[in-house]
Amino acid sequence: MHRLAHLQSIAGWDQAANMPAKGNEARALAMAEMDGVLHQMRTDASLQALLAAAEQESLDDDARANLREMKREWRASNALPQALVEAKSLAISRCEHAWRTQRPAQDWAGYAANLREVVKLQREEARLLAADNGLSLYDALMDRYEPGMTSAEVDRVFGDLRQWLPGLIQQVQARQAQQTTLQPVGPFPKAAQRALGHDVMSLLGFDFEAGRLDESAHPFCGGVPEDVRLTTRYREDSFMQSMTGTIHETGHARYEQNLPRELLGQPIAHSRSMGLHESQSLSFEMQLGCHPGFAKLLLPLLNKHIGESPAFEVENLTRLLTRVAPGYIRVDADEVTYPAHVILRYEIERALIEGEIEVDDIPALWDTKMMELLGIDTRGNFKDGCMQDVHWGAGLFGYFPCYTLGAMYAAQWFASMRRDMPDLDQRIASGDLNAVFDWLKANIWSQGSRFETPELVRRASGETLNPAYFRAHLESRYLA
Amino acid sequence: MHRLAHLQSIAGWDQAANMPAKGNEARALAMAEMDGVLHQMRTDASLQALLAAAEQESLDDDARANLREMKREWRASNALPQALVEAKSLAISRCEHAWRTQRPAQDWAGYAANLREVVKLQREEARLLAADNGLSLYDALMDRYEPGMTSAEVDRVFGDLRQWLPGLIQQVQARQAQQTTLQPVGPFPKAAQRALGHDVMSLLGFDFEAGRLDESAHPFCGGVPEDVRLTTRYREDSFMQSMTGTIHETGHARYEQNLPRELLGQPIAHSRSMGLHESQSLSFEMQLGCHPGFAKLLLPLLNKHIGESPAFEVENLTRLLTRVAPGYIRVDADEVTYPAHVILRYEIERALIEGEIEVDDIPALWDTKMMELLGIDTRGNFKDGCMQDVHWGAGLFGYFPCYTLGAMYAAQWFASMRRDMPDLDQRIASGDLNAVFDWLKANIWSQGSRFETPELVRRASGETLNPAYFRAHLESRYLA
Ligand SMILES: [Zn+2]
Ligand SMILES: [Zn+2]
Repeated sequence: MHRLAHLQSIAGWDQAANMPAKGNEARALAMAEMDGVLHQMRTDASLQALLAAAEQESLDDDARANLREMKREWRASNALPQALVEAKSLAISRCEHAWRTQRPAQDWAGYAANLREVVKLQREEARLLAADNGLSLYDALMDRYEPGMTSAEVDRVFGDLRQWLPGLIQQVQARQAQQTTLQPVGPFPKAAQRALGHDVMSLLGFDFEAGRLDESAHPFCGGVPEDVRLTTRYREDSFMQSMTGTIHETGHARYEQNLPRELLGQPIAHSRSMGLHESQSLSFEMQLGCHPGFAKLLLPLLNKHIGESPAFEVENLTRLLTRVAPGYIRVDADEVTYPAHVILRYEIERALIEGEIEVDDIPALWDTKMMELLGIDTRGNFKDGCMQDVHWGAGLFGYFPCYTLGAMYAAQWFASMRRDMPDLDQRIASGDLNAVFDWLKANIWSQGSRFETPELVRRASGETLNPAYFRAHLESRYLA
Repeated sequence: MHRLAHLQSIAGWDQAANMPAKGNEARALAMAEMDGVLHQMRTDASLQALLAAAEQESLDDDARANLREMKREWRASNALPQALVEAKSLAISRCEHAWRTQRPAQDWAGYAANLREVVKLQREEARLLAADNGLSLYDALMDRYEPGMTSAEVDRVFGDLRQWLPGLIQQVQARQAQQTTLQPVGPFPKAAQRALGHDVMSLLGFDFEAGRLDESAHPFCGGVPEDVRLTTRYREDSFMQSMTGTIHETGHARYEQNLPRELLGQPIAHSRSMGLHESQSLSFEMQLGCHPGFAKLLLPLLNKHIGESPAFEVENLTRLLTRVAPGYIRVDADEVTYPAHVILRYEIERALIEGEIEVDDIPALWDTKMMELLGIDTRGNFKDGCMQDVHWGAGLFGYFPCYTLGAMYAAQWFASMRRDMPDLDQRIASGDLNAVFDWLKANIWSQGSRFETPELVRRASGETLNPAYFRAHLESRYLA
């Protein structure tokens, strides 16, 4: 199954990065067929007895953990009929593919029609999973990405955040209003941005003999651990989005490239969860990428590929990287306003899956919540509003909380690193990024799925998820 | 199976066009696993009875032809054990991947070690197939690419060719020695060549919404009919190889893009054979691409992308395109010397499969035959000698004759077209290439595998394979 999923991953990357329009229908059918084959394997009649027998064996820790992960996957797969799996795969491929042209065309009606089909199938999946594991409908879907996490816990954490975040944003904005920040002036040719991206990835330790950087409409980190496929997108009027996006995806990539190589093919060699995965991308993009010491390392690369500019002077560059400004686009958001984007999506997607709202309610809710959380008017602007992300069209309901959980974990990792290495900030500024990478490799990357999330987090940082580190990080970076 | 093979095709293209070095081992394992899954499906125990029952049904012509093709595939698959199929897939992936670096390094010893493993498995495959269908060892392998063709027939056709070809090459060379031909002077930047390739493909009717042009170490036409993936390779000191190579692969591509779309997924929607496939690539590359009328159509594209040059003047360009000169490299050969390259490979690969020679004998045989057929000394030059093609490493024993059979079919098609359209040459010169494309589409592309090869050829051209057309074509183009 590991080997067949390899082909599925590469075909999925190709679909987003290379495939011409007329190839989509055949690709969607091919990937749905493979989803069906994999589902058949996961639901093979012989597995239940084999898993039960394995449970009685004397197993070492790794084997016991493998069995735990196999049972989790077996249980989730057996709750779903093959027809649903294939229908979902098809609906997702079609919705995602059409979104690529519908988004620039502001075609909400067209997108909504496809999305309704995806939501229908996701609700059915939630119903079947929840009936099996006793979770709520939404929690049953979120469990696919963040096993063990519940919306009660998310509500607790996000509820706290919702209280202090708007005030913090205002405080930071008031403070930054007094600063003068020079903006780099374009255009910035794509080829120069691509070369910059490659150099930044090298600086961050990406192994180009085991991966690539390409382009797609929505950036992502795909492929397989042995061959990681990053994508980004370029706008010639600005290089910052592509650069910070590439830094983000490189964090995902290094997690994948450094999973326990000798165990690949076993369940414990998988990344732990999507929250943990985002904790890596955000360790790279936010903790490290917006660090004043990191700006020093970026400067020569910017000079080499983009040119000389007073805007690239370290202090100004740091200001650019830590500029807090409510905006339309989640993936372009700074680390202070980012959680607001996630809270909005979490509230909408949970209501959608729980059946409290319908697809047609999304635009109005989006507008209301954007105004409430960030004071931004998105009415009529589908492209930069509720059609900006393809997650829902791709059936990723329950994924969004992982971004902010990831930001919180990332803050917790860096607090832990600073306890171990009081000179961490000087090390970063001096270019010794291995101080960070070695810690992440030892505590996260090389651990794969040996431990369940709370245990992994406790081993890495001495305690389970503690959102106080995230607040402390933002206050120290933006208000100190 | 059609859908799963889609993923295999895309992953195979990616392996050649994109994959970084460290990805190969995992990719090889993934593709071998899929070959195993497909083999299991083809050898499912229920199929024999189902095929026998279908035989008794009253079927229309298409269904009857589908059944014929299914039985052919069933029989060939059932002659081979799954372990052999997977071992072959793995050995091929490894050999092909290593060849990419071994060839430039002239590492014959390294390549030979991998090739011995492939040959061992190919001989075993030949033995099992021959035991089942009663053909000779080599014919059993050739039957995979050119069903129904035998080495007795190839010997007859190639024997005739071997008699008159060396004399013809000398005659043409003597004649061309009196001509002055201007050579275009480089360097020719890759980006300009790529843009030229795109425009030439458009001129030839390639549908870019259903395919792409990329780069690989060995040019090929891969992907799926709905999404055809061409590759080429660029050298900055010459644009002709890449351009003519792209024209060649575009011929393959248009065959694939124009297979009967409504039947895709059925066996009769497949291209008929590899000889027929090469007859399309060579109709494009040789019949059309070296046609003096076609040079007129290339001129504005060359001016646009490469620049102005007296070498591009139509008469000189035609001379460049029809220059006959014995050379090392098969894929760069002109249409007169090309068959010599094929005869050489056919003689070596047949002896290898029949067990008359071993892998270690290849270099010496290669040198002898190159000297004999083309008067060229390749001793010690593995890169431009027996390591230039990856066919053997890729397990494609029995494929090479298809190139020259294809050249003969292509000459037969154009002779038939000229009977139907006496003004064909003027039409080509005036840019009415649809005269050619419509004929190929009606007679070859849209026919898929409805008919066996001799019947398809007879319906298209009024008779079965007649090599006299090829000789007449060469004499008329090069000696008239
Ligand atoms: Zn991410
Ligand atoms: Zn060809």
